[in-house]
Amino acid sequence: MTDTGLQHLGSSVKPLELTSDGAQLLDQTALPAEERYVTITTPEAMADAIRTMIVRGAPAIGIAAAYGLVLGARRYNGDVSGLVQTIRQEAEMLKQSRPTAVNLAWAVNEMLKTLDKATSEESLTGVVEALTRRAEEIHREDIAACHAIGQHGAEKIPQGARILTHCNAGALATGGYGTALGVVRSAFSQDPTIQVFADETRPRLQGARLTTWELARDGIPVTLVTDGMAGHLMKNRMVDVVVVGADRIAANGDAANKIGTYTLALAAYVHDIPFYVAAPLSTIDLSIESGLEIPIEERDPEEIAVVNGESLCAEGIRFYNPAFDVTPAPYITGIITEKGIAQPDYRLSLTQLFQ
Amino acid sequence: MTDTGLQHLGSSVKPLELTSDGAQLLDQTALPAEERYVTITTPEAMADAIRTMIVRGAPAIGIAAAYGLVLGARRYNGDVSGLVQTIRQEAEMLKQSRPTAVNLAWAVNEMLKTLDKATSEESLTGVVEALTRRAEEIHREDIAACHAIGQHGAEKIPQGARILTHCNAGALATGGYGTALGVVRSAFSQDPTIQVFADETRPRLQGARLTTWELARDGIPVTLVTDGMAGHLMKNRMVDVVVVGADRIAANGDAANKIGTYTLALAAYVHDIPFYVAAPLSTIDLSIESGLEIPIEERDPEEIAVVNGESLCAEGIRFYNPAFDVTPAPYITGIITEKGIAQPDYRLSLTQLFQ
Repeated sequence: MTDTGLQHLGSSVKPLELTSDGAQLLDQTALPAEERYVTITTPEAMADAIRTMIVRGAPAIGIAAAYGLVLGARRYNGDVSGLVQTIRQEAEMLKQSRPTAVNLAWAVNEMLKTLDKATSEESLTGVVEALTRRAEEIHREDIAACHAIGQHGAEKIPQGARILTHCNAGALATGGYGTALGVVRSAFSQDPTIQVFADETRPRLQGARLTTWELARDGIPVTLVTDGMAGHLMKNRMVDVVVVGADRIAANGDAANKIGTYTLALAAYVHDIPFYVAAPLSTIDLSIESGLEIPIEERDPEEIAVVNGESLCAEGIRFYNPAFDVTPAPYITGIITEKGIAQPDYRLSLTQLFQ
Repeated sequence: MTDTGLQHLGSSVKPLELTSDGAQLLDQTALPAEERYVTITTPEAMADAIRTMIVRGAPAIGIAAAYGLVLGARRYNGDVSGLVQTIRQEAEMLKQSRPTAVNLAWAVNEMLKTLDKATSEESLTGVVEALTRRAEEIHREDIAACHAIGQHGAEKIPQGARILTHCNAGALATGGYGTALGVVRSAFSQDPTIQVFADETRPRLQGARLTTWELARDGIPVTLVTDGMAGHLMKNRMVDVVVVGADRIAANGDAANKIGTYTLALAAYVHDIPFYVAAPLSTIDLSIESGLEIPIEERDPEEIAVVNGESLCAEGIRFYNPAFDVTPAPYITGIITEKGIAQPDYRLSLTQLFQ
């Protein structure tokens, strides 16, 4: 792969990249067994890659969708006014590929703003170039935001801390450094005695498959546990702090994240262990009052029923597979963003971050 | 298999049985894909079957160990005094096959009492017969206890309840009817509108593999969820009551059960959802004051790392795999036994059950 100059400082993982051939996605469904890139050349293929989780993680799917629109503009063959209509349709399709993470809609809307501005003064080539610049800028800004999140968050990590995390809010889930794992990376660079407990994160096992892979690759000590072990670890004083990512944060601080996060927050709450959510501003949705308004995606029961190609359960049963849950703000110690750490009252502190 | 007259009323599952060929164990590592019985003919093979979880569940491994000692007596070829020494050694080996469930030691000790009594008055054949009678009696008593647990527990199940359970405390885990699932079976026989949410129960997936199998087989509606979903289900009012089994209950009511139970209890506690532990008196260990004294087995990391023969995680990482956790008594609404339901103060109420 060519190097487009995007900063990957502090992480060796490149989750996605725009090249002249298309968008290159590190296939996250193949990890950790195989490290392979998939070339995406159309917005439709990008929507599929988002739906099937070849690329996943709230900030990463935002960037991927932005690249998807660049691919739509690149293939377009007509006049500028037709391009606007085409890109708007593709934008809608990309937004609908997954419902919970607001970063997806945020990035697509950023691209539409650029489209509107560019079409008023540019040729077709100029519009394609403007969209490309904005998509790569969204990518760069996300990496920069992750680094800033890491810096702010590291201040909350005690010396020698054992950090519990859920799912993968790492380099793979973002432009390339991570939110929750950005905090881990920053803390580790200052204090190599910290270590991570990674929840395996059923059903899709992003903790086992992805978090262990990217932390092991960067030499950060990681211990894999099952999701149900959180309470036991905390009761036995094996965890000092919990840091997770988020897919959408409401104006009141309620945070949607991978299913299992809320159960983990409850355990932390009972044990009086700090519970931080790390996410860029693009994850914060001030247009909704509370977590009640966050749409929760339900995914295929097969994600629960089948692992490594073999069924795990009896036939003729039912499944329930919500992909996310919402942790109410009172269980969240702080929300770590690139602009600093918001603390309760979140209605006030989150709004201030945007000023 | 021959029918030895053991009651399996209300459950079609026969987890184990003593026959003239040996002890027949339904191989729980092969379910639900395959329903096959393994014939065990020596105490050593029985200890292995317990260790490798061909037979599992606190009451079931107690019965299995008792049958293991019958197999030791059957093969013995010598005088009665030598038999005592041999059986005592085999008893020790069987006790050490798994450390947490007290039913194992309890059943072995019951067999040793019978041995002591029989050897004072019987021939070798008489001793073998006495041990056989006692082992089959332990089995019958366990099934009877499960039925009584079911009857008592059913009174605590609201009309149309959605019952959440963890791991498998069913027919497979006992002589043949179940503790937590005994409560479910009894409740279902009175109110066919109840339904079960089964935690899949990582790492060994006893909920997915075993609980769904035995409930589907008995026509009881069951929905499979991942362990991390408990909080989300409770917040969304999808669960009315939690019922789990136990592997050892201390004098103060602290209960060891499959890893993940404590995290579940915390979620139930925060949501004010009743949390019941169902177990026979043979699971209660009045010799220990609290859960701090319960030994927690740690098992092979491979249980976490590998599912269906394929690794789920990166190489070069660490694992932590405690097989059980302890739920402190304050989180337990009641302990459902064959003698009735103990409620706090458990120090008093558990002692009274034995009088």
